[in-house]
This record gives sequence, structure tokens and C-alpha cells, in this order.
Amino acid sequence: MSGRLRVLPLGGLGEIGKNMTVFECDGRIVVVDTGLRFPTADMLGIDLVLPDFKYLRDRAEDIEAIVITHGHEDHVGALPWVLRELGDHAPIVYGGRLTVAMARSKLDEHNLRDAYLEDIEPGDQIAAGPFTIELIHMTHSIPDAVAVALRTELGTALVTGDYKFDQTPVDGPPADISRLAELGREGLLLLCGDSTNADRPGFSPSERDVGPHLEEVFARAQGRIVVTSFASNIHRVQQVIDAAASLGRKVSLVGRSMRKNVNIGRSLGHIEVPEGLMIQPQEVEDWPDHKIVVISTGSQGEPLSALRRMAHNDHRMIKLHQGDTVVFSATPIPGNERAVNETVDRLYHIGCDVITPRDAPIHASGHGYVEELKLMLNLVKPRYVMPVHGDHKRIHLHAELADAVGIDPRDVFRSENGLPLEVDDRGAWLGEPEQSGMIFVDGVDVGDPADVALRDRRMLSADGILIVVATVSEQTGQTVAPTEVIFRGVPFIEQADGLVNDIREEVERSLARAANDSVKEIDLLQQELHDDLAAFVYDRLRRRPMVLPVVVEV
Amino acid sequence: MSGRLRVLPLGGLGEIGKNMTVFECDGRIVVVDTGLRFPTADMLGIDLVLPDFKYLRDRAEDIEAIVITHGHEDHVGALPWVLRELGDHAPIVYGGRLTVAMARSKLDEHNLRDAYLEDIEPGDQIAAGPFTIELIHMTHSIPDAVAVALRTELGTALVTGDYKFDQTPVDGPPADISRLAELGREGLLLLCGDSTNADRPGFSPSERDVGPHLEEVFARAQGRIVVTSFASNIHRVQQVIDAAASLGRKVSLVGRSMRKNVNIGRSLGHIEVPEGLMIQPQEVEDWPDHKIVVISTGSQGEPLSALRRMAHNDHRMIKLHQGDTVVFSATPIPGNERAVNETVDRLYHIGCDVITPRDAPIHASGHGYVEELKLMLNLVKPRYVMPVHGDHKRIHLHAELADAVGIDPRDVFRSENGLPLEVDDRGAWLGEPEQSGMIFVDGVDVGDPADVALRDRRMLSADGILIVVATVSEQTGQTVAPTEVIFRGVPFIEQADGLVNDIREEVERSLARAANDSVKEIDLLQQELHDDLAAFVYDRLRRRPMVLPVVVEV
Repeated sequence: MSGRLRVLPLGGLGEIGKNMTVFECDGRIVVVDTGLRFPTADMLGIDLVLPDFKYLRDRAEDIEAIVITHGHEDHVGALPWVLRELGDHAPIVYGGRLTVAMARSKLDEHNLRDAYLEDIEPGDQIAAGPFTIELIHMTHSIPDAVAVALRTELGTALVTGDYKFDQTPVDGPPADISRLAELGREGLLLLCGDSTNADRPGFSPSERDVGPHLEEVFARAQGRIVVTSFASNIHRVQQVIDAAASLGRKVSLVGRSMRKNVNIGRSLGHIEVPEGLMIQPQEVEDWPDHKIVVISTGSQGEPLSALRRMAHNDHRMIKLHQGDTVVFSATPIPGNERAVNETVDRLYHIGCDVITPRDAPIHASGHGYVEELKLMLNLVKPRYVMPVHGDHKRIHLHAELADAVGIDPRDVFRSENGLPLEVDDRGAWLGEPEQSGMIFVDGVDVGDPADVALRDRRMLSADGILIVVATVSEQTGQTVAPTEVIFRGVPFIEQADGLVNDIREEVERSLARAANDSVKEIDLLQQELHDDLAAFVYDRLRRRPMVLPVVVEV
Repeated sequence: MSGRLRVLPLGGLGEIGKNMTVFECDGRIVVVDTGLRFPTADMLGIDLVLPDFKYLRDRAEDIEAIVITHGHEDHVGALPWVLRELGDHAPIVYGGRLTVAMARSKLDEHNLRDAYLEDIEPGDQIAAGPFTIELIHMTHSIPDAVAVALRTELGTALVTGDYKFDQTPVDGPPADISRLAELGREGLLLLCGDSTNADRPGFSPSERDVGPHLEEVFARAQGRIVVTSFASNIHRVQQVIDAAASLGRKVSLVGRSMRKNVNIGRSLGHIEVPEGLMIQPQEVEDWPDHKIVVISTGSQGEPLSALRRMAHNDHRMIKLHQGDTVVFSATPIPGNERAVNETVDRLYHIGCDVITPRDAPIHASGHGYVEELKLMLNLVKPRYVMPVHGDHKRIHLHAELADAVGIDPRDVFRSENGLPLEVDDRGAWLGEPEQSGMIFVDGVDVGDPADVALRDRRMLSADGILIVVATVSEQTGQTVAPTEVIFRGVPFIEQADGLVNDIREEVERSLARAANDSVKEIDLLQQELHDDLAAFVYDRLRRRPMVLPVVVEV
């Protein structure tokens, strides 16, 4: 495929999360982002969801580099699994300084200490086979977020990563609009742009606007203040620290990821903490209530998070009480609303006051709104556009924005996971689909969502299980011991009079029928028992538990 | 308890849904509302949740009447279970005309055709033991919604039911402010007021405002229009019909509850349909796209609803396609966001345009906002206030509103389910808690949420089950047939090399230990096997499936 560029999204299209895009030129590959997403309620017992990256496994020898745009889980979270699968072929991983530090910390936890990561500066030109990689400084809700320009003979593709055009960032310069404009003047071949807020009109508020509002909220609070936010939102943590310092309150960090990220942020100079401001969680009780700000994980109502524990009066060190104020400096990610609402309501029950972004502008999204997406399109003037990072709705709305700024709709491609965009010097088109989808992480294992185990768990969770153990004589085919009948997860069994005896009798009838039909093979016997018992139980209980007959021959 | 009024909330406090309040005077009882709620995601396989109404069962002979404020499920849904439990003691059920019609239809489905229901007019004075019952006309998102005044010797209690002060309702007069003011002038003893929108500032928009916006949205649509809303929102359905008629489109109703409610609404004169406007769902395909409006259930993304089926291309009669517009004339109830978002995204994937209340003011809440709650407090001037119908947050905010209009905070009672308010001529106080909680409906059965079956299902759904059947000789205690090892719902078992054999060996070891310790009793044997196998499996798989050993002695 000389003179051809292939752009294959393996995640992040038709969904929010697990972003991963493969760029291929002359048979060589650069991967941008290796993200994960969190399971939905119907993925019973699943811990994490990765993109299906079989394509990368098959092409392991051809991968020149992986580039991570920033340190959020939906962009870097799958890296340990990808590197482990690629084994000896694992390529070098590039990213900004904080991004690489966070990735390294994550890889350490997975005992992948040999991975080769390199932090590079925006503007550096990195050769990777037929590609030249360049990072472009952007603003987002985490420091060191970048867009990635991939230069090839055919032209340059730009992956925006997650971004907003924050004109007054809390830390560092605004996005490098000048470099983006330069790419536009040179003639950009393809834009792969973040669609997350394609449904929000106007411009996103600046992160810096949050600080004064936090301070106002703090100033009104009489008792202790607990602020919860994303642990990776280092700028937000800085602003909470600043507000606390200006009001003479001490700050304590609660929650493992909060402590870890703040440590990394401090070591890289992204967070400045005044001398003597920080106290340990176990010291919180030693200070008067009005001298305390706690920064905590749990803004999404996560079950084991510090804030959720506090809301359930179940935190080892911090006991909330009437007069405390809990500040949610984050909005619920779609799907987390119920967990967040539950946490908020528990806090009200304790007698806390709760302030959310509905009450005061104490959160700013890290993703640009509609006008920013249009600004990006106008700056880089792409020949082709492929919206990424969005469900079907947002991809659709982003494509309409491209239309609105005058890009020919035929040059705008609404792709899906696994559907590659092929570009050569005559045009661009959507090619033949490649394998894509989800891989489930369940404890320490990874596997396929079609896994029969998940189907079984759905069935077990809905209607429970009936286990019947029949001990039969090899000679006569008749039972020689009382049949064991065990229900688990089938409700109201105790109300079904004589059910166990009736099931035993049904087993006898079923075995007798089988003997009549000369069925002797255990598998067949069990199949017949299964069918007879399933029908019998449905008839009696109007339920369909999983029916599991075991025939023991003696 | 002569001269004393007891108000016992059995549902609707500290939660949204299953509203039920018991009023007791001189040992006689009037129940206001018998609502249900829908299960949350962690209530595996549960269909409905009812208030625990043991208190009513115990006091069945003392119940004078049940009053239903309106026909929504969270106020009337538990009526079949309550009446069935009360049996011969089931009292008369009062309500407005539509309310009684909907209750009757529901009771018919439960084969409770002997129940005694009576529709009464606002203003009628109904004697019920020591109580005089009077309904007061209110406005809400369903016709015939009423507040209930319960007059006793001690004074009058007012239960608002769900209400808003809609000055321009679509059908019928505004709320009877005049009668409410009269109650206030007479001196109201207690207000039990709806708290649902205690967190929304200002006044709620009028239902009538929705119509013109619907018509605007319809006028812009080129293809077919599908509108989804609550089936009981008969005024909304009327406004959709009006907008369709004015644009020359035919209307078809899809979804069982939509057809049922519209039938009831038409028969009671709440819905007017122009001659020839309605067509059957199977006729939709016979008309040009721009001549069609479909009104459908599924505004909450319910799994089996008509709209969800259409979104998944799985509806028998209506196939959506590019160019169709789907209008959500409803907002997601908290907890349903994910299901609604999924449905919306499927619709975008099909190529439909989707309009929600975020895009245009095409929905109006049926519950008054903050200023309306204050208006109610000022109108009826209650001596005591008990906010109802709300989670802890909304109860708290409603109590603050009472404070804001000048009611002494000591006269405002933040109660909980099961916590009675006691009132006599010297004062009011929260009394001793009574039994309250949830009853789960699972298929045809009802039971306790502490039911071991639900706990089992949670365990099964998280980690699956391991069943081990060991056939042992009664004499030697040793296995005499190969041990059966069965996994269900445990993922990635196939990757665990030799696991089944290792488990068999562990069984032998465990049995040998038991034999050494002279353990022979089957229950004890099974307990030891359970503990050994659970530890063994956790060690190997880092999972905790339910472990179920069966020992068969021969």
C-alpha cells in the first residue's frame, strides 16, 4: 500500500471511551492511544473493557511506535495489555512528560518494567518508519495533553486527542494555535477530531474560571469542606489547594489515585503546595472543622471510593457529620448518574450540605464545545475529516459541524470501530472492515464478551439455578440413593409446597422414560432430564432457572 | 389515641417512588396512595418494588378508606397487592374519575374484579370514621389529579399529591387555589407536600407551552415523526394529536400502555381526536413519510418498549430509516439516563434525527418548582409541615423552603419511611418507628429483599458457580466414581490448564483429611469440602465463585 494511508479506528467510535486509532503507511504502523472503558451494568462481574486489538497482534512486527495523547484511562488504560500481548515486538511508546510518567506508573503495577517509554517535547520531529511524529501542545483537563501530527509522503494526518481551546489555562501556555494554523497553511490531509462535546453549543468555560467559584463556595462553608474531582485533574487540585490556602484551611488528600496523581504532579512541577499546608488524613480530626479541606476521589460515586465510604459512614479516618460541606467539582459521566445521586443523597442524610455544578460553576469540561470544534476545522483546513471519540450521535453532530464550516460532506467520513479510512492521491473512501470490538478484563483474565460465562451469569442473575444429582445403578438405570435437589438464587422456593419431592418424582419418571427408550449414555440421560425438569419447573414456578442435572452412575 | 393524629409514611421518603402515607385518628385509618417503584440495577431479576405494608395488614380491620391522588404507578401501582392482602377487610378506594378508571383496569388485570372503587368529585365531603375526606382539584401531568384534605376533630391535614400550579392547563381548570386558601384561612394543622422538584428554582413551565414547540419541531421534519412520552400523559398526547392534525399528518399509537391509556382518556372525554386522524400501526407503511406521526411508549428506554424495539430494528410493524425524526417529549427519570442514551444513539446510527428536551422546550414537568412549593406553603399556612415524595436531598430542600416562608423550623418534620409524626393539641413530634421497607415482586411472587435468593443471585452474577459431585463409599469414605466438576458463569476456565483434574485431586485430599478426622456426617463433609475447594479455587483463579459440593454416598 505504497502511497496509501490507512486509518483504522479500533475504539472510540460509536461509543465513549477505549480510544485507539491505527495509522498505516507502506505496511508500517503507528498507533495513537490505547484506551479502555469501564463496564456497563449488564457486563456482570466485568472489571474493564479493552478494544479488541487482534489487528495489532497480527501485525506486531510492523508497529513502529505507539503515541499516547494524554494520561487519561480512556487513552492510556489498555497499554499494559497491548504491550504484554506484543511481547518482544512491543514498540517504543511516546507521549508528553506527565503522560509518560503516568503510563510508567501504570506499567509498574503490571510488572512491565522493561517497556520502553520516551517523553518528547512538542515540536520534536520523531522518525518512525514512513511517518514523522510531532506532538502539538493542547489544553485539556490534565497537563501535557497533545495533538499528534503524523507526516507521510502522502500528506499529514492530525489526531487532536482530547482538547479544548482554553485561552487562560491554569498551568502552561494555551493550545499551540500557531502550529495548528501552520499545518493548515501547509495543507492538512486528514483531521481525526475529538467529538465529545459536539452536542454543546458555544465555547467551553476556562479551567481558570473555576477557581474563584470554588473560593466563593468555600468562603460560605462553616464546617469542614470535602471536594471531590477526578484524581487526574491536576489543575483542579491546584485550584482547590489555592482556595484552601487563601482561606487559611489545611488540605488533606484521600483516596489512593488522588495521592498518587498529586505526587506525580508535584514531582513534575505541575502542582505547587505552600509549605505546611498538607496534613495527613489521620490528622484531620485534630483540627477545627473550619480549618479543613479534604480532597477526595469518588466524584463518580464509585463503590469503593473514599467519598462513597464517607457517605456510608464507612471511612477509616474521615467521619462526616452535620455542618460539613461536600463539593462535587465534576459532573457524572453518562451512566454514573444513579451512583452519584445515591452518594449525594447519603450525604444529605448525614446532614451535609452538598454543592454540585448545578448549584455553582465549579466544574469546567476538558473538551471543547461546538465553536471550538469549528475553530479547529477552520484552523487546520483538512482535505478529509473523520470525527472520532464519540457515540453515533456525536460523530453525526461533528460531521454536521464540518459541513457548517464549508467542508464538502463527501470528504467527511463517519466511520465505525473496525472500519478503515483509505486515502491515496486520488481520493479517500471507507474500506473493508477489520476485526474490532470489546475484550473484557475480569479479575486477572482477559477474554471475549461472547464468552459463555457472561451469558451464564446473566441467566444465573435473572433466575438462579436448580441442581439435581441423581445416583443411578449402572445395571437397572434406577436411582439407588435419594436424589439431591438444590436451588440457589431461585426466590420464594420455600413457598412452593412439596416442590422438592415433586422434582424427585419427576426425575424418577424421566429416568423411567429414558430406560424405556433404552437411553443409557450419560450425556443423553442428562439432556433428557434437563428438558423434562426445565419444563416441570417452569410449569410449577413460572421461572426459568438454569437447570443442571448430574447423573452419577454406580 | 383519641385527640391524636398519627401520620405514618410507609413509602416515598428518602426515595423517589412507592408513595404511601397512613393517617390514623381514634384508632381508625385512612391510607393516601399505594404506589410502587421500579427496581434499580442491583435488584437482579426483580420486577417491581412495593412498600412494606405489614402495618396495614396488622391493622386491616381498622382501615376506613384508601384514597388515591392520581393514576401514576408511584401512587396507585401497589393497589392490587394491598387489596389482595387485606382480603375481606379491603376498604373502599376513592379517587378522581380517571384515577378510578385506571385503577379498575389495573385491578382487572390482577383478577380483582370485586374491589369496591368509587370516583368522587372535588368538594364532596366523604365520611370515613373520624375523618372527613375531601378531594381538591390540582394540576399535574395526568388528568384528575387531586390533593386530599383529611378533616378530624384535631384539625385538617392536607396531602398535596403530585402537583404544579399550571395557570393554563391543556384540559380542565387550574388548581383550586381558592379552596386551598380557604383551608389556610380556616387554619390547616398539617401539610404533607410533594418535594419532587424542591431543587428546581422558579416556576415550572405550563403544559400548554409544550404544544407550539412540538408543532415547530414537527414543521421542520421532512420524514416520519415518532413522538415518545409517558403513556399516562394524556394532555401531552392531546397536544401531539393537535400538532399532527394542524400539519395534516395521520397519527398512529404504538405500545400497549399507550393504546390503553388513550382509550381510557377518550372514553372519559380527556382526549379529542378529529375524525379520520387515527390509523393503525400496520397502515403506517401505506402512507407517505411526511404524512405520519407515531406516538410511542419507550421514553425511558425500557427494554421491551416499542421505541426501543424500533431503535434496534426489531419492531414488527414500524421500521425506522434515514430521514425519520424521533422526538423525546419526556426527560429520563434518574437512573434511566443510560438506557435513554443508548436508545438515542441507536436511532442516530439508523440515521434518524433525534430531538430531546435539551434541543427544544418540548417537555414540561408535572411537579411544581421551588416558587410553587412556597406558594403552596403560603396559601395553606400550615401549623406543621412534613415534606413527602422525595429523597433525603429534596426533603431537606423542601424543609428549607418552609423556613424561607417563615415557618418555625421546629414545626417542620423531616421524617423517614416508617417514622410516624404524632400530633395532638399540645404539639407534634416524631414517634417510634414502625416496620417499613421494600417488598420485591419477582414474577408472580412477592417477598423480602433480604431473601437469600437475591444474595445468591448477586454472588452468581459476579463470579458464577462451581459444582462438585463426589460419589463416596459409605464404608471407606473414598470416591468410587470420577468426581464431577462443573463450572457455570466462571470465565476463562478453559485457559486454566488441568484445573478440573487438580480440583478432583483436591477433593481426594479433602476427603482423606476428613476420613482421618473421622468426619462422616454428610453435612460436615460437604462443609469441609466447601472450605477446602473455595480456598483452592481462589488460589488458582483469584475468583470467588459460589462453591457447591454434593457428596453422594453409595
